Amino acid sequence: MYNNTFGNLFRLTSFGESHGEAVGGVIDGFPSGIPIDTAFIQNELNRRRPGQSQLTTSRKEADQVELLSGVFNGISTGCPIGFIVRNTNQHSTDYDNMKDVFRPSHADYVYMQKYGIRDHRGGGRSSARETIARVVGGALAKLALSRIGISITAYTSQVGPYRLDNDYTKYDFDCIEKNPVRCPDMEIAAQMSEYIHRIKGEGDTIGGCITCVVKGTPIGLGQPVFGKLHAALGHAMLSINAAKGFEYGQGFSNMEQKGSEQNDLFYDNNGVIDVKTNRSGGIQGGISNGKDIYFRVAFKPVATILKEQPTVDIHGKETTLTARGRHDPCVLPRAVPIVEAMTAMTLLDYYLLDKATRL
Amino acid sequence: MYNNTFGNLFRLTSFGESHGEAVGGVIDGFPSGIPIDTAFIQNELNRRRPGQSQLTTSRKEADQVELLSGVFNGISTGCPIGFIVRNTNQHSTDYDNMKDVFRPSHADYVYMQKYGIRDHRGGGRSSARETIARVVGGALAKLALSRIGISITAYTSQVGPYRLDNDYTKYDFDCIEKNPVRCPDMEIAAQMSEYIHRIKGEGDTIGGCITCVVKGTPIGLGQPVFGKLHAALGHAMLSINAAKGFEYGQGFSNMEQKGSEQNDLFYDNNGVIDVKTNRSGGIQGGISNGKDIYFRVAFKPVATILKEQPTVDIHGKETTLTARGRHDPCVLPRAVPIVEAMTAMTLLDYYLLDKATRL
Amino acid sequence: MYNNTFGNLFRLTSFGESHGEAVGGVIDGFPSGIPIDTAFIQNELNRRRPGQSQLTTSRKEADQVELLSGVFNGISTGCPIGFIVRNTNQHSTDYDNMKDVFRPSHADYVYMQKYGIRDHRGGGRSSARETIARVVGGALAKLALSRIGISITAYTSQVGPYRLDNDYTKYDFDCIEKNPVRCPDMEIAAQMSEYIHRIKGEGDTIGGCITCVVKGTPIGLGQPVFGKLHAALGHAMLSINAAKGFEYGQGFSNMEQKGSEQNDLFYDNNGVIDVKTNRSGGIQGGISNGKDIYFRVAFKPVATILKEQPTVDIHGKETTLTARGRHDPCVLPRAVPIVEAMTAMTLLDYYLLDKATRL
Amino acid sequence: MYNNTFGNLFRLTSFGESHGEAVGGVIDGFPSGIPIDTAFIQNELNRRRPGQSQLTTSRKEADQVELLSGVFNGISTGCPIGFIVRNTNQHSTDYDNMKDVFRPSHADYVYMQKYGIRDHRGGGRSSARETIARVVGGALAKLALSRIGISITAYTSQVGPYRLDNDYTKYDFDCIEKNPVRCPDMEIAAQMSEYIHRIKGEGDTIGGCITCVVKGTPIGLGQPVFGKLHAALGHAMLSINAAKGFEYGQGFSNMEQKGSEQNDLFYDNNGVIDVKTNRSGGIQGGISNGKDIYFRVAFKPVATILKEQPTVDIHGKETTLTARGRHDPCVLPRAVPIVEAMTAMTLLDYYLLDKATRL
Repeated sequence: MYNNTFGNLFRLTSFGESHGEAVGGVIDGFPSGIPIDTAFIQNELNRRRPGQSQLTTSRKEADQVELLSGVFNGISTGCPIGFIVRNTNQHSTDYDNMKDVFRPSHADYVYMQKYGIRDHRGGGRSSARETIARVVGGALAKLALSRIGISITAYTSQVGPYRLDNDYTKYDFDCIEKNPVRCPDMEIAAQMSEYIHRIKGEGDTIGGCITCVVKGTPIGLGQPVFGKLHAALGHAMLSINAAKGFEYGQGFSNMEQKGSEQNDLFYDNNGVIDVKTNRSGGIQGGISNGKDIYFRVAFKPVATILKEQPTVDIHGKETTLTARGRHDPCVLPRAVPIVEAMTAMTLLDYYLLDKATRL
Repeated sequence: MYNNTFGNLFRLTSFGESHGEAVGGVIDGFPSGIPIDTAFIQNELNRRRPGQSQLTTSRKEADQVELLSGVFNGISTGCPIGFIVRNTNQHSTDYDNMKDVFRPSHADYVYMQKYGIRDHRGGGRSSARETIARVVGGALAKLALSRIGISITAYTSQVGPYRLDNDYTKYDFDCIEKNPVRCPDMEIAAQMSEYIHRIKGEGDTIGGCITCVVKGTPIGLGQPVFGKLHAALGHAMLSINAAKGFEYGQGFSNMEQKGSEQNDLFYDNNGVIDVKTNRSGGIQGGISNGKDIYFRVAFKPVATILKEQPTVDIHGKETTLTARGRHDPCVLPRAVPIVEAMTAMTLLDYYLLDKATRL
Repeated sequence: MYNNTFGNLFRLTSFGESHGEAVGGVIDGFPSGIPIDTAFIQNELNRRRPGQSQLTTSRKEADQVELLSGVFNGISTGCPIGFIVRNTNQHSTDYDNMKDVFRPSHADYVYMQKYGIRDHRGGGRSSARETIARVVGGALAKLALSRIGISITAYTSQVGPYRLDNDYTKYDFDCIEKNPVRCPDMEIAAQMSEYIHRIKGEGDTIGGCITCVVKGTPIGLGQPVFGKLHAALGHAMLSINAAKGFEYGQGFSNMEQKGSEQNDLFYDNNGVIDVKTNRSGGIQGGISNGKDIYFRVAFKPVATILKEQPTVDIHGKETTLTARGRHDPCVLPRAVPIVEAMTAMTLLDYYLLDKATRL
Repeated sequence: MYNNTFGNLFRLTSFGESHGEAVGGVIDGFPSGIPIDTAFIQNELNRRRPGQSQLTTSRKEADQVELLSGVFNGISTGCPIGFIVRNTNQHSTDYDNMKDVFRPSHADYVYMQKYGIRDHRGGGRSSARETIARVVGGALAKLALSRIGISITAYTSQVGPYRLDNDYTKYDFDCIEKNPVRCPDMEIAAQMSEYIHRIKGEGDTIGGCITCVVKGTPIGLGQPVFGKLHAALGHAMLSINAAKGFEYGQGFSNMEQKGSEQNDLFYDNNGVIDVKTNRSGGIQGGISNGKDIYFRVAFKPVATILKEQPTVDIHGKETTLTARGRHDPCVLPRAVPIVEAMTAMTLLDYYLLDKATRL
């Protein structure tokens, strides 16, 4: 699970730069016999696509996915699923002024140092366009998970100072796709939306948090000690561009609460062992306990701002940079489907890993 | 990097239950030619050992490590380093009352569901005693890293409501090992210490945070897109028992700050490209940029409390449990060397991975 | 190294069925800074292509490769190289009569049993068309290896009863590409060629052996104990369609020779330690010793013959089958570049792995 | 599957040098709920042990295995199984004369070049003593496989010029353990035995072949395209010390036979699809077809001979070497249980991998 491959038994290997020919990937280890709903996959891509609303970049990317293998008569064959999405709306010249300049808090400088070469156009490999492959992989994983009753819902829970309560049960998930911020509280969504517009008007950007909730996970997913389920989820989330933190269950909060206040007590729920609370976040000892899994991911403000910033060029000479191009003032709304995708791939992988526990 | 193996090129595979014969592991991929200071390794184990102070459990565990291979005339040979630490101070009978009972917020229940069998004595494989292998692996990694100038320092930055400032540069790291809490502020350390004693007196437990700072990392460590350095560090930290969250750089904080306030601006530092700030936490685009890497890890309160708790037995019948045995009221002080160990192993692994970037 | 990913640090993940949209793959871990000669890659594909001569199938496949990422201004960037080759010359209807029938000694039956579904057209994933991805990966690996002085040459050393001497030093490698069999002895090549024509005329097929010689390997490649260099080479070769055996050095031959007759004796070659013989095949204890690496791979006759054969249909009912379509009477000539490709990928991977031996 | 870890889901990680403290390993991914018969494991080690007969080295090694974890009340828990075998019969001084000398056709020279250091005592890590860990891993795998009806039998099929017929069905496997050569034909066994004695008397060594037969494999094991079952078996076999070749099914033989003579024809066997012959060796397209899997492994003569040989010292100066110590004149008899062990681990791993094919 390093470089450009994600997962153990279910594995996505992705490729592609922002302004190259195409982005795409190979999904290996996808179970055979799963009906492949291509409209669903395309719809997931559309949720990620720029230009959905005034809150996102105005770039129009068709992002039409083409599945090249691994599906026969609409059913997965167990063979690898290759796919590509052509890059059709490249304004590479937007980036000409960045060719010899390192953008602050971007990957430009470290890519140059690590690889000795970089595709400067649109961030090259470090562009968020890379997440297209994640969304395709996640969409396929969701198709498999739906057959075992696992469902995944993410939403924007914080934008700058606007923040939802940590208790996700308070919110109506049906609202999420009804507003451009993807926030399950319509009122706060409106405030977030207005705030993002203001930030955009300033040529600035803002960060926030996404909350993700998984329902229907069977008991037993997780591979201790180094493959604890939340460690895998944390790895998956932190691999998303701009992610700065991950917490599940109580996370960094409620530090004042003691063990006696945090433990989830078992009880006899009509003949079934159950817990009265779910402060653990659905995972204990690194293994799912059958309750809802929930976690939060922190995202920093997009580094590309439309204000002039001092920086240096590739020769180390000081200069200034004013970004051109079409950029998101806030990454959160479009990151929601990506968080879901990474969650789906992780859970399917761990579902398959768990099967090897027994003969 | 799942089950009981950690790492890609540098790999620790660990084994052992709390009350079994021994815990231990195999370290594979350790570079040849490194002098192995066994006193240093033992000292790292001593930092993790229970019974160091009144703040930790009163169990006395000798935790004497025996290196069985891979070292010849005091030098690493490049061959795998096998090691064991015998379990010598087992009070297995302390756990007899837990044989048929699931401890709340422990791994007992999920292990039973996943594996169909569990070693109930002292938590078996889910016991924190497993971290001995991590500390040995980390000590070896530190010996290698010291030769390339990388140093790692972790400390307790929060215990319950007592919390240090996020800015680590304010603190004197020389203080860390001078107080039993391993906090670099002697005054707050005293408050934390007193607080932990009070919690212990109540038979209760408390959580907190550890901050870790890495100095001397060369530019270029990190394997985008799924092997981003902070994703690997997050995975490593979240794999530690009781960890609930990970953040690096700004993390979950300062959400009100905009891109223009968060970006680290490049400048010409006497002929060397440098940044004026390090809000990114030493990692940009998943690759180290040569600045200090810093991150925080959240730990929940230890689940084992000495108060009576309602629970169920393995047949689902409701009962109560009062833990016996010797337990930590606060895991933080002893988790400091474990956080350092996981950091060291991750960095060595990624240092070796980076070498493959070029021919 | 299982399913559809080959390699550890240098990794090819491939996809594609014979009669699907495309075959292709992703090459990850390719070093940055390598000039990418696309004409060379296409030429390697042309060596593999059907229809090169009367000895191979008359299918005409353009097999035009398109590199989609990972190369910028003609130089590798260290980012994954995605590529596809469209399937343009599909005569899927040739296979209609095989839809419900299991071809003898083909993968049809076991694919159906393992996956519950199969793409019957042209063998689907089990088709030799899959090797296109191997040849692309191998061509890239060769470009990297050429910069460190490693060269790889394979040739047909046996077809049916016609067999070259095991001592490769007897032959002129310049002759290999001068005859359609790819045999370095023009006279035997002519005999083999005539023999294959005769077999083809009978509607039958024939097997044989390929010998491969690697020159210029530095001392030290190989990762004992399970990653011995010859074990990795063996794995690579045996993963090629129709391969039935692998031997290196003395292999299965010369069993009458004793240790005293087989050992390679060291001597002082003008100040450099050298061996007088190379019976070991360039690998000792699983590690390259700097001498030529040589090995042989056995291939069975192609299972598809143009004679009627009894078989069963998917319902288990007995029937007969006469293959249509365009098939190779002898796989050897076209397998030569595939053997080279797998060798190249293995050596580059092990070259990169070896770099982690030292800090 | 490189360095010192073998397998994907079932994984053995081994450690230990010939004259170090111990050899051992960790088995991870062993299914839970399997009764662990320690007497069986010890018996497998005894089959590998030196000093069993006059045909093997006279070294007496107790080779007492100690399981340190992963087993509770005699049942596997699904947690890693750590184990060690202490080295108790070390005559390290036997090797003092080899400290500064490179033994011909041994790993001494390449280890020194690769790692810059080597444990010269008894071959260090490159000693066949390393195979103890393989036999323990294989014994555990056999315990699991026996529950799903898979049985593995290997035997010596060639020693120097003495060779059995390739058709294993001719032989009575009950004879194998009744003679010290482990050959199923008592008459040829006696000839082989006498021949080995003669070779031993000359201070020389001799090689040969081992045949292995697997019965009861379910249809569907194998992970195309790079994880073909025979490729994994080939890798496993070639990783054994002194192995020089691997072939399955027809292998390198019968090259004169055409496709029409080699294909295994399907027929209706009382309502079950079956094949009339098994020339494929139980694997088609890389996937087991439910028939017997059979393969052969070639071993070279042991490099250590008791005759004086010219060589060089570590400074490159020419010298001579006469081995002392206790060495096998023929590795075959003791390699039989090692071939079985590697086969067992491979099959269990692939059985577990196959479970992920379906949801």
